[in-house]
Amino acid sequence: MNFKIILRLLGFLLLVEGIAMALAFFVALIYGGYDQTAFLISSGIAIGLGTTIGFLTRKANKDIGKKEGYIIVSSVWIVFSFFGSLPYIISGAIPNFTNAFFETISGFTTTGSSILADIEALPHGILFWRSITQWLGGMGIIVLSLAILPVFGIGGMQLFMAEVPGPTPDKISPRIRQTAKTLWVIYLGFTVSEMLLLWLGGMSIFDAVCHSFTTMATGGFSTKQASIAHWSSPFIHYVIVIFMFFAGTNFTLSYMAINGKFKHVFKDEEFKYYGLFVLGFTLIIFIGLLVSSQTGVEESFRNSLFQVVSIITTTGYATADYLTWAPILIFIIFGLFFFGGSAGSTGGGMKIMRIVLLLKNSYYELRRIVHPQAIIPVKFNNHSVDAKIITNVLAFFMFYFVIFGASTVIFTIIEPDIESAMGAVATSLGNIGPGLGNVGPAENFLHVKPVGKWFLSFLMLLGRLELFTVLVLFSPSFWKE
Amino acid sequence: MNFKIILRLLGFLLLVEGIAMALAFFVALIYGGYDQTAFLISSGIAIGLGTTIGFLTRKANKDIGKKEGYIIVSSVWIVFSFFGSLPYIISGAIPNFTNAFFETISGFTTTGSSILADIEALPHGILFWRSITQWLGGMGIIVLSLAILPVFGIGGMQLFMAEVPGPTPDKISPRIRQTAKTLWVIYLGFTVSEMLLLWLGGMSIFDAVCHSFTTMATGGFSTKQASIAHWSSPFIHYVIVIFMFFAGTNFTLSYMAINGKFKHVFKDEEFKYYGLFVLGFTLIIFIGLLVSSQTGVEESFRNSLFQVVSIITTTGYATADYLTWAPILIFIIFGLFFFGGSAGSTGGGMKIMRIVLLLKNSYYELRRIVHPQAIIPVKFNNHSVDAKIITNVLAFFMFYFVIFGASTVIFTIIEPDIESAMGAVATSLGNIGPGLGNVGPAENFLHVKPVGKWFLSFLMLLGRLELFTVLVLFSPSFWKE
Repeated sequence: MNFKIILRLLGFLLLVEGIAMALAFFVALIYGGYDQTAFLISSGIAIGLGTTIGFLTRKANKDIGKKEGYIIVSSVWIVFSFFGSLPYIISGAIPNFTNAFFETISGFTTTGSSILADIEALPHGILFWRSITQWLGGMGIIVLSLAILPVFGIGGMQLFMAEVPGPTPDKISPRIRQTAKTLWVIYLGFTVSEMLLLWLGGMSIFDAVCHSFTTMATGGFSTKQASIAHWSSPFIHYVIVIFMFFAGTNFTLSYMAINGKFKHVFKDEEFKYYGLFVLGFTLIIFIGLLVSSQTGVEESFRNSLFQVVSIITTTGYATADYLTWAPILIFIIFGLFFFGGSAGSTGGGMKIMRIVLLLKNSYYELRRIVHPQAIIPVKFNNHSVDAKIITNVLAFFMFYFVIFGASTVIFTIIEPDIESAMGAVATSLGNIGPGLGNVGPAENFLHVKPVGKWFLSFLMLLGRLELFTVLVLFSPSFWKE
Repeated sequence: MNFKIILRLLGFLLLVEGIAMALAFFVALIYGGYDQTAFLISSGIAIGLGTTIGFLTRKANKDIGKKEGYIIVSSVWIVFSFFGSLPYIISGAIPNFTNAFFETISGFTTTGSSILADIEALPHGILFWRSITQWLGGMGIIVLSLAILPVFGIGGMQLFMAEVPGPTPDKISPRIRQTAKTLWVIYLGFTVSEMLLLWLGGMSIFDAVCHSFTTMATGGFSTKQASIAHWSSPFIHYVIVIFMFFAGTNFTLSYMAINGKFKHVFKDEEFKYYGLFVLGFTLIIFIGLLVSSQTGVEESFRNSLFQVVSIITTTGYATADYLTWAPILIFIIFGLFFFGGSAGSTGGGMKIMRIVLLLKNSYYELRRIVHPQAIIPVKFNNHSVDAKIITNVLAFFMFYFVIFGASTVIFTIIEPDIESAMGAVATSLGNIGPGLGNVGPAENFLHVKPVGKWFLSFLMLLGRLELFTVLVLFSPSFWKE
């Protein structure tokens, strides 16, 4: 194990975090507030430590294998969350370490669960920092899943890229850099476009920036306690719906669309099912709201569409409190907690790709039973899917449900209400944000006991790294030479 | 499609049902009651119709293919339930057709959900008929899964028998007959042993017969409104626990044990995990009850053991109302709704075998990630499990959850309380008996709306035939020549 290169890369990433903190410092300077010194100190610590580590490890061997990759990926979110909580603690915005860490890891994992009970009371620098943690987290996960992992041939996070050839030593860096740069440009482009549209729709420029950051990351942090419900403008709601939908789409498809290859996009099966799920569930909830609710037709439609897209993409914004809906609609929304965005998007959860593969395999199995001699592989985008991928998806699915079930049982010891426990666990594991019961969209996580917050923080990390990346570290064979 | 042979076999089975009704008639005669004529008439109809069909189809071509097999298996439970409801209707014990059909299919599928609100008021003949429907259903499912289906090479129900060679025309009949006979003897032997022990423990001979019938079928119908809680004797409770456990064990293993091959039994992986799950969950619930409840140590242990075995094996007897327990314990019990007995037992649910294969596959996947070049198949009983079986299990799992989720959503339209809906759907699909909320162990299904009862009846059938057998009939490729 090349620990030096692990340290070196973490040091470099810490430097990046320090620069982001410096950005927040300038925001704090512009708007004024008690948080200026906090950002100066935190930024100094991060940049100083990052540079020192960089200097100390300058002679590190540059070989990064798969195992080093897993360790870096799993630890960077923890390191980021640890240093990222400094501004909250030093400024006194969130004086308690557990709370500050929870808020930060909820940011970097793009979950969006918050312990804040009065968001509007916070200074602009802190609000900006909350948003930028999500934006960095979202950027990180795309670069990771679309540029870095495929090159390393690390499976599980990037199913459809399974045919990408393994690394050839001298080609790694240019390829990663090229892909990462393209993704970065698209991500930035989307963010700026949304920002302009939200500003056009009547948001202040500050709120527009923060919300476009947290939309594109499918994060869900808002600068307002009431989330998007703070704004009554349908235009703003629809703009956010569209960009949440983009953020939950595979960024490779966005790249194609930008290059005019719309045919490729609309032929993509995951995209088709993604659209189908969004429309189908919106329709069901729309009908449910029409039958049971007092709101008008357009508002009911907008509320269903917004909430469905927000939950499916694992963003977690709210324009309505779904816990006030009919029980059947709450049940459906809870079902959506297990969907998640497309593979290669910033969304969390199980991912549309996996769900479609599982459903298809079940449907094909009926044919296999009728024709037991025939070999009937699952087809996806007109290609036969390797049986290895199917068993991988199966393993993922099973882990997801066992972890969900066992964690709920454990969590009920901390939080006796089952519904709240199920909601808290599912929303953390799926990187969504709001849950059920006393952690619903109109509530927050402040009242959860400290041990519960650490537990949920771990689940956020586990979910964000799609289980395997973290679980593999607990496997004995990983540590065997 | 050879419809004549399908009809002929159904006619023969109807004759068997008629004979069982005649047996109930004698019970009614012995104990007296208003149900005597009802059994005489029903038995006459079934025997008469069965014989007539037999006569009319005497020239039927004897070729039975897989497709005919699927149709016979799916329809026999419906035919049995239709004619089996006659004694209830004619005697006036359950005058309503929907209720009578629900009670009968709940019997034949060994589910055990009941619409009866005052069981003790019923005559002995009717109580005996309820028990014998379950006993026949249990016997039917064992013969089907261990003797008939493997010979026909029908997959899905008999995973571990997948290597049994296909049918050789002249050998089918003797082999089926031999296996079926052995199973019949074991089933009868267990039933008689339990009956004697229960009688020894203080039950009346009638109650002992009825309960041994419904234990061995993992059915759960009782002759008392309070179920097994009617008896306070720990001896009776433990006897029933032991026989529920036997009923949930693969009957092939029981055969081996009877022949002294204990080594084979204890080496069997499904059996090991089955024991492990029972012990593990009993321990968890035992600790939970000790912490939260007022009952003593022995009683708490007995209550946890009894309820865990009753639910895991999908029997559904109760010595305690688990809905009065702490929420976390109810959640765990609900989780057990998805387990089910061993393959080749009378238990319903997902089956231990499938759950173990899924868990193993997940665990092996971590190794596969570390060693992506190696081919690491799932091992079971020291054999590599074919990838085909893994995808089959995956398909089953997915169907099970999609059907559970979608049915719950549909059922909430009928029964608005979500918890009750989840419980009713899961208990019907798993052939268990009691559910959650207003269909809990202390309640019954009388108040469910007629359409809801038909819906649950369908789910019982679907679950009993392990989904595929029924679902395949809805697949277009099944009907193509």
